[in-house]
Amino acid sequence: MAAAPPRIVILGSGFGGLTCALSLKRARASLTIIDQRNFHLFQPLLYQVATAALSPADISMPIRRILQRQANARVILGEVESIDRTARTISLRGCAQVFSYDHLVIATGARQAYFGHDDWEVYAPSLKQIEDATDIRRSVLSAFEKAEAETRPDERLRLLSFAIVGAGPTGVEMAGAIAEVAKSELAMPHRSIHGLKARIVLVEAGKQVLPGFIPSLAATAVRSLERLGVEVRTGTKVESCDAAGIIAAGERIGAHTVIWAAGVQASAAAQWLGVAADQAGRVVVQADLSVPGEPNIFVIGDTATVPWKEGRNVPGIAPAAKQEGAYVADALLRRLAARAPPPAFRYRHQGDLATIGRMSAVVDFGWLRLSGALAWLLWSVVHVFFLIGFRNRLMVAVNWLWAYWTHERGAELITGQRRDP
Amino acid sequence: MAAAPPRIVILGSGFGGLTCALSLKRARASLTIIDQRNFHLFQPLLYQVATAALSPADISMPIRRILQRQANARVILGEVESIDRTARTISLRGCAQVFSYDHLVIATGARQAYFGHDDWEVYAPSLKQIEDATDIRRSVLSAFEKAEAETRPDERLRLLSFAIVGAGPTGVEMAGAIAEVAKSELAMPHRSIHGLKARIVLVEAGKQVLPGFIPSLAATAVRSLERLGVEVRTGTKVESCDAAGIIAAGERIGAHTVIWAAGVQASAAAQWLGVAADQAGRVVVQADLSVPGEPNIFVIGDTATVPWKEGRNVPGIAPAAKQEGAYVADALLRRLAARAPPPAFRYRHQGDLATIGRMSAVVDFGWLRLSGALAWLLWSVVHVFFLIGFRNRLMVAVNWLWAYWTHERGAELITGQRRDP
Repeated sequence: MAAAPPRIVILGSGFGGLTCALSLKRARASLTIIDQRNFHLFQPLLYQVATAALSPADISMPIRRILQRQANARVILGEVESIDRTARTISLRGCAQVFSYDHLVIATGARQAYFGHDDWEVYAPSLKQIEDATDIRRSVLSAFEKAEAETRPDERLRLLSFAIVGAGPTGVEMAGAIAEVAKSELAMPHRSIHGLKARIVLVEAGKQVLPGFIPSLAATAVRSLERLGVEVRTGTKVESCDAAGIIAAGERIGAHTVIWAAGVQASAAAQWLGVAADQAGRVVVQADLSVPGEPNIFVIGDTATVPWKEGRNVPGIAPAAKQEGAYVADALLRRLAARAPPPAFRYRHQGDLATIGRMSAVVDFGWLRLSGALAWLLWSVVHVFFLIGFRNRLMVAVNWLWAYWTHERGAELITGQRRDP
Repeated sequence: MAAAPPRIVILGSGFGGLTCALSLKRARASLTIIDQRNFHLFQPLLYQVATAALSPADISMPIRRILQRQANARVILGEVESIDRTARTISLRGCAQVFSYDHLVIATGARQAYFGHDDWEVYAPSLKQIEDATDIRRSVLSAFEKAEAETRPDERLRLLSFAIVGAGPTGVEMAGAIAEVAKSELAMPHRSIHGLKARIVLVEAGKQVLPGFIPSLAATAVRSLERLGVEVRTGTKVESCDAAGIIAAGERIGAHTVIWAAGVQASAAAQWLGVAADQAGRVVVQADLSVPGEPNIFVIGDTATVPWKEGRNVPGIAPAAKQEGAYVADALLRRLAARAPPPAFRYRHQGDLATIGRMSAVVDFGWLRLSGALAWLLWSVVHVFFLIGFRNRLMVAVNWLWAYWTHERGAELITGQRRDP
């Protein structure tokens, strides 16, 4: 009788976990993918849901559909409660069944961090999950509607003010996209707010927007943002968030909508395992991405900290997570075939991309640096190409073409607040 | 100096209110459309959002976009608090501004009614708003995911059981669509629930499904539903709803998902005005759809009760609301031009349509009765045609073609329950 196939459990179906699962397609193993959500989320386009250009279904794909033809894989919807390293089992919250593993891959991602001020979250939502995006969409679109019915000029100005905290790619993209939304809303005829100006402030504690990008491209991004009317404030630390707006470097900035795009906190993997983590909660892994003393447990993506070059770590971006997922799948395939392990993981940086509003982006592939409309076109092609599933690619392309032809956003819905007729 | 143009206020932008506003395009009047939501909802397709075939943005269109080229119209987002008939003003909740009218059209619709058992709503959500649809989508899709991780056969059966209360068009369409979802979910390979059977029970207190349809078409609908595996129980009254399911005609039916599609309650227009209403809260209007003693206030759509024929009232369907909206617009145009009022409102019934799962429907135009695939095709064309906005028509058509080619639903997302990574 043949022995039962080895059990591989993958926690999380973001870019890291999903790439790992797909790369194990031919593995003689029993794969279990566990996630809290039933869909893979294409996070790089989440800001487009928040600014009403795309619908949630455009950037989400059910995990089960992605893996439906992979005979060695099953998908379980559940939330990790604990991991027993001795018994090699995983318990899920509210689930009697316990899941055993021979090899475990943890790819549970990260969430936004408020630097110890979790109470700011109610005033300054972040942009990590689909619900965050629809919440922000509601806030942004409601601001214009409330301004329409508001007669006090001060309050109207505050309603038309938006503060974005953190000028990484998400912050820059949000600021640019909100500027475009405001332009379109305030240009609509027959409105009392017609012709007014919105105020969009992008606040960054560091010295440069888009940290990690070369300074000249960051400067181009600032110029593009300013052309859209965004006030860019670098070297400015946020000291407080409340219902009226934010206080940054001692100054109060009144804003109806505040969006938090600064700092992340890894998921609780280090606590589940009882192992060392860095300040952001990321598990410190070995050169083969396994946990020290646990060769059967790998941690990848935003949940792990991996050294790169010049004292920096591998960045928390989709291509890095995908490379790590593919590396661990290769390591497991070799192990299952009793072959030598692969050499240590080496991150290959493919480039930096950020888009700034309509038809404008900055791109740095090392051998090619671009900004403006051509960079935006490249950015669009790359993002549509990497979207999982033919249908989503098609829908996103149709939605974008529509928006760029007509200047209309396809998903301008204020939802999530139930109202009785 | 010319006198200020007369002020017409329309409350609600459903089929009635929106048709009225659009028909007043050329009126020399100042139009204000007030709604709680910023979008017109194409309610007849809401069940398709609930069953993951369409996205919210596919069946919703921002009111401002629909009316953006109508120079005499402005849109205000707000919730009616009270109407002062003497001062002719409307107050909105939390809004200092008061809105004056010379002519008022109330088209604020209806919500689901639980026959005095409002506590049942938490167990048996209804299907009136976008959020209802995404809530039901979450419940239906979660049921299959929970069943996947469930080992107790009894509980698994309950998770795979669905009860729909009320067999009007919405109930019939939901039952058929859930049967299709179940078929597709349970046919997916590599699942522990593969090959199991779902139980779908459609409970109706009346003697016939699709009340109002001729008995022979209703019988055809029952046969189509039964072919899909739906248990149809007419003459069966629901006595109780709780977390475990429902009790109907003394029998407990265990079900994880219960959907309420029985009975409606009009919005509070009768209370705002202090006038007579029928049992369902609908304002009793005169032959010209105005309120008795208030020739300047009209009530239309699901908020009004209008006699039709054979002791029946005009049904609460989209074509009826649209006819009433157009009638009131005509009456106002004549009044503004100091011409004679139109003859009393007469409802023209255009037909009955209901769809039952994939490629099956019943259609009754009086002069033409159809069932099966051809009826479904007709139903699809009619619904895509009446969808407001070219983009929504295009997206719905693309989504449907995709779903029918691939058997994949485009919006299988379990959203709305936030999870921390």
